[in-house]
Amino acid sequence: MPSRYLSFRCSLPWLILLLQTLFLLHSFVGFPGGDDIYSPYSLYPELQDVNHMVVFGFGFFLMVLRRFGFSSTGFNFLLVALGVQCSVLLEDCFVFLRAQQNEAGMKSLAKALVSMTAVVISTGAVLGKANPVQLIVMTLVELIFFSVSKCINRTYLQVPGGLQTLMHVHLFGAYFGLAVASRFPGAPPGLDKHRSTPRSELFSLLGTVFVWVFWPSFNSILADSRREAVLNTYLALAVSAVAAFMLSALTSKDGKFRVAHVHSAVLAGGVAVGSTAHSIQHPWIAMILGLLGTGITILGSHCLQRCFNRALKLQDTSGVHFTFGLPAVLGAVASVVLCVVEKGIAKQWNDLSSLGYLIFVAVGAFCQTICTALITGLITGLILNIKLLKAGHVSKYFDDQFYWEFPHLSVGF
Amino acid sequence: MPSRYLSFRCSLPWLILLLQTLFLLHSFVGFPGGDDIYSPYSLYPELQDVNHMVVFGFGFFLMVLRRFGFSSTGFNFLLVALGVQCSVLLEDCFVFLRAQQNEAGMKSLAKALVSMTAVVISTGAVLGKANPVQLIVMTLVELIFFSVSKCINRTYLQVPGGLQTLMHVHLFGAYFGLAVASRFPGAPPGLDKHRSTPRSELFSLLGTVFVWVFWPSFNSILADSRREAVLNTYLALAVSAVAAFMLSALTSKDGKFRVAHVHSAVLAGGVAVGSTAHSIQHPWIAMILGLLGTGITILGSHCLQRCFNRALKLQDTSGVHFTFGLPAVLGAVASVVLCVVEKGIAKQWNDLSSLGYLIFVAVGAFCQTICTALITGLITGLILNIKLLKAGHVSKYFDDQFYWEFPHLSVGF
Amino acid sequence: MPSRYLSFRCSLPWLILLLQTLFLLHSFVGFPGGDDIYSPYSLYPELQDVNHMVVFGFGFFLMVLRRFGFSSTGFNFLLVALGVQCSVLLEDCFVFLRAQQNEAGMKSLAKALVSMTAVVISTGAVLGKANPVQLIVMTLVELIFFSVSKCINRTYLQVPGGLQTLMHVHLFGAYFGLAVASRFPGAPPGLDKHRSTPRSELFSLLGTVFVWVFWPSFNSILADSRREAVLNTYLALAVSAVAAFMLSALTSKDGKFRVAHVHSAVLAGGVAVGSTAHSIQHPWIAMILGLLGTGITILGSHCLQRCFNRALKLQDTSGVHFTFGLPAVLGAVASVVLCVVEKGIAKQWNDLSSLGYLIFVAVGAFCQTICTALITGLITGLILNIKLLKAGHVSKYFDDQFYWEFPHLSVGF
Repeated sequence: MPSRYLSFRCSLPWLILLLQTLFLLHSFVGFPGGDDIYSPYSLYPELQDVNHMVVFGFGFFLMVLRRFGFSSTGFNFLLVALGVQCSVLLEDCFVFLRAQQNEAGMKSLAKALVSMTAVVISTGAVLGKANPVQLIVMTLVELIFFSVSKCINRTYLQVPGGLQTLMHVHLFGAYFGLAVASRFPGAPPGLDKHRSTPRSELFSLLGTVFVWVFWPSFNSILADSRREAVLNTYLALAVSAVAAFMLSALTSKDGKFRVAHVHSAVLAGGVAVGSTAHSIQHPWIAMILGLLGTGITILGSHCLQRCFNRALKLQDTSGVHFTFGLPAVLGAVASVVLCVVEKGIAKQWNDLSSLGYLIFVAVGAFCQTICTALITGLITGLILNIKLLKAGHVSKYFDDQFYWEFPHLSVGF
Repeated sequence: MPSRYLSFRCSLPWLILLLQTLFLLHSFVGFPGGDDIYSPYSLYPELQDVNHMVVFGFGFFLMVLRRFGFSSTGFNFLLVALGVQCSVLLEDCFVFLRAQQNEAGMKSLAKALVSMTAVVISTGAVLGKANPVQLIVMTLVELIFFSVSKCINRTYLQVPGGLQTLMHVHLFGAYFGLAVASRFPGAPPGLDKHRSTPRSELFSLLGTVFVWVFWPSFNSILADSRREAVLNTYLALAVSAVAAFMLSALTSKDGKFRVAHVHSAVLAGGVAVGSTAHSIQHPWIAMILGLLGTGITILGSHCLQRCFNRALKLQDTSGVHFTFGLPAVLGAVASVVLCVVEKGIAKQWNDLSSLGYLIFVAVGAFCQTICTALITGLITGLILNIKLLKAGHVSKYFDDQFYWEFPHLSVGF
Repeated sequence: MPSRYLSFRCSLPWLILLLQTLFLLHSFVGFPGGDDIYSPYSLYPELQDVNHMVVFGFGFFLMVLRRFGFSSTGFNFLLVALGVQCSVLLEDCFVFLRAQQNEAGMKSLAKALVSMTAVVISTGAVLGKANPVQLIVMTLVELIFFSVSKCINRTYLQVPGGLQTLMHVHLFGAYFGLAVASRFPGAPPGLDKHRSTPRSELFSLLGTVFVWVFWPSFNSILADSRREAVLNTYLALAVSAVAAFMLSALTSKDGKFRVAHVHSAVLAGGVAVGSTAHSIQHPWIAMILGLLGTGITILGSHCLQRCFNRALKLQDTSGVHFTFGLPAVLGAVASVVLCVVEKGIAKQWNDLSSLGYLIFVAVGAFCQTICTALITGLITGLILNIKLLKAGHVSKYFDDQFYWEFPHLSVGF
């Protein structure tokens, strides 16, 4: 069907050019001049780790589909390069609008990279379905809404600023992605490009191990007490990895391991302690969280795929709901419980009203984040499927050929 | 043969669960509370490097077999996550038993990772033969015996504590692995899964380069004078890499390179200077050690595979004997010689009795390590082949299919 | 043709042995003894990054050819291990000859690694054509000439020493490589080994992303003000990546992306700011340079391949001319302009003669570097094609089989 054959030449480059010009203009007027841009250099090794994880690790991690290797890596790379600049611009806008304290240079870059993780997670849900134009629009819209959500939390619920980026990044990313994915038509049942091959699974296993290794740096980059964050995250991840293999052998036929389980569950511990890693005082709490996170993920991967997704006709390509969504919910609940217990013990459970206020604020921030993510995600999903953005036909899903030029005969990855 | 079809569902998950519960309990009672767990943060970049090397690098490095990619990476990952926790527990036990000085937090994690390297090396010898249950039992037993061996060295032979973990880790790992492998039945001659393909060799070449890059961090992480350790290791590795290509071209037909040579010999320099990198005063000594290490490895790979292994009916899947064992022996000898020469020069060769004592202690520690490794390895090998642990039939060797679920048709890696 | 069948057994190992003995002797007499070798340890994380990038990253990056995976990675590895030692020796020779200030230890290693990048870039131009003997000779000759060129710049043109290594490394590497490549006979038109497959392109895409991630460390390792260098490089790279996708979609058929564009253009920004990253005061300048660099690269890749290379009968296997050469020229021009503008503003454009002198020096250094590279490259190309070095016949181009032993049936990568 040549008439439906989509060329991105008239839309994609100009969209990118427009954005890049905007960022350039912003950097011309916006960046604080002189010395203070380049202040906290000591952050660099961690920043490098997170950069490595988000750009290379996730590009690898998302290589699940058998004919979508180039797009998984390439689009992830493009979105990160674009989104980081966009995120810095947005941060500066909020600083300008609300006279908020400005954190320039490396710190600003670190925050931008962490915010981008929400987008990377969301793209996992529509992996193979959204074309580059849609992905770029989604990146912009998601970064704006994520900033707004953070701003509401900070202003009305007094959630401490430095950390909450990290706190709700998985939560927002996963549910925004799900809501967007729900607006995309499902792949036809006969389409086998959707499947993975041993080779693509091997790549994604390597990618998972790669991301796993760098997760402690990710969880500690914005924390005040980085040592605790690193050690707690490491322990939670170790327990998570062990539990993932255990539960995989327990739930699958013949006690074999399933790559998809390992792929989604080993990171659950890291996600679950994301918002509390810096404040957990006893390593065993982090380990318990890692165990629970993996349990929820494996359980979720069975339940969600069979009931929830089928009922809602939802297709979540790389399973972000159970990989990042559920452990993030667990992490948010755990952070409330831990905070209440800690404060309760400190005040000997005398001051119940202040405890109640704490719970109210934490639950409020959690509900606000998840609702904003779902609602704005749905709206974004609707926007993405208008004609202007040239949504691909379902027959064009999951295939590199529609986005990349192969001068040679294209063989399956 | 359906009756021999092994399901790990009733053994593997429960074994893992038991161990993980134990580690959790330990972390509940064992970890010192409060601030002192998280003490030396400055170690973090090196810890991250070593973690990256052991988890990702070795997983890559071991991908030699053509149908065993998932298991090589996956099992290595599982064992590291499990073994690090186990090693921390063991360390704490010894602290408790012997009122030894406790090193908490990052330092403890670093030591655990270095100890785990012994296990990772040992698994290389039985790669493709041992099933996950056997591997986990082996990990536990090896970590215990390695701790005991270190404890004997420290108590009776006054080997300095901080470094000797690193000193004998390759030695113990290689000979323990060999002894275990000798108790496994050999693969039948016709089995071609044993072979490597260009693709799996390419992966293992990439993995080798990866491990090579991170070796200086590994050798320096427990050293007091890290700068010397890094620089000497780097030089030894560089010489080793060059010598590996040279000797490979010299010993193979037509002067071509052989991937297996590069795979095993480029790390020899790093292994050989492992125990002395921090104390070598002149770079040329490290370079000579690198050269000798590679020479021994290439020579060993020819001799051992043709004579020694055939005579003993030993199958050493990824050649840990010549990759890690022989250079480690060279390193141990070199450390004695260097120590004696240095002390001798300092005292102008007057105090021969104290020199004799030094030699006695060093040789004693070396012999003790190697004997303990061989004896406990043999015992472990016998234990691993009892019926309870469901040793796989030889026809099930070297194949991912028996351990991983493939929803799709399994094609060769 | 058995008579032309080349064995490297009689040449390659002895050449390597000779060189390695030389380096050993040098390290015996040359290295300053005692404490001062191991001085600036704080450099280690960056050194590790650069090492990782040059050894693993470029090995990956160069894996473009479909039957040349082993050689791309393996030879790159060999050359780096050899070249770093050679570069340290050369540096010490110049110190000895000119009583220049000596920078020992880590700093010396860092400089050697940066110099080696010039060689790695040059090898890209003759990738698949030069045999290992030729590559080793080329490495030696190029390192010597690069040192001489730096020495001329430092002595007669007073270019500051610490940085100029970085300043001209891409320039020298690219044009030296091109000149060498022009002396190699072209591949016959029918040879399809020259082509890339989706799989080899995927590997090279991953390698590109890998190198991209580590580029800020590379640009900052020799700079005095590392923070500025890191941040400016990061921004230039981000803009470059975005622009590469934009221009790729704009210039290719149907608005699809072309992997070759991404492969060559995303690094352009990093190369272009290489010589100025530490001194740029406003981030937008770095971003503009990133944009221009990518533009020049993509434009160059079209023009050069169609006109320039065809006219000169030049085959530049991995396109180093437009990947590294053109952005480096842009960077050199930009460094002159920025320097003049900065000095001009500082002195209110009063002291025109000193500005003229500045321009004269900078242009002189640039011209000297490029001329030396081209002339010495041509001479090296002639030397490399003498009979003694056993230049491979064109039918032997681009094939691992002539350099590596495959015990198994060789299948395409």
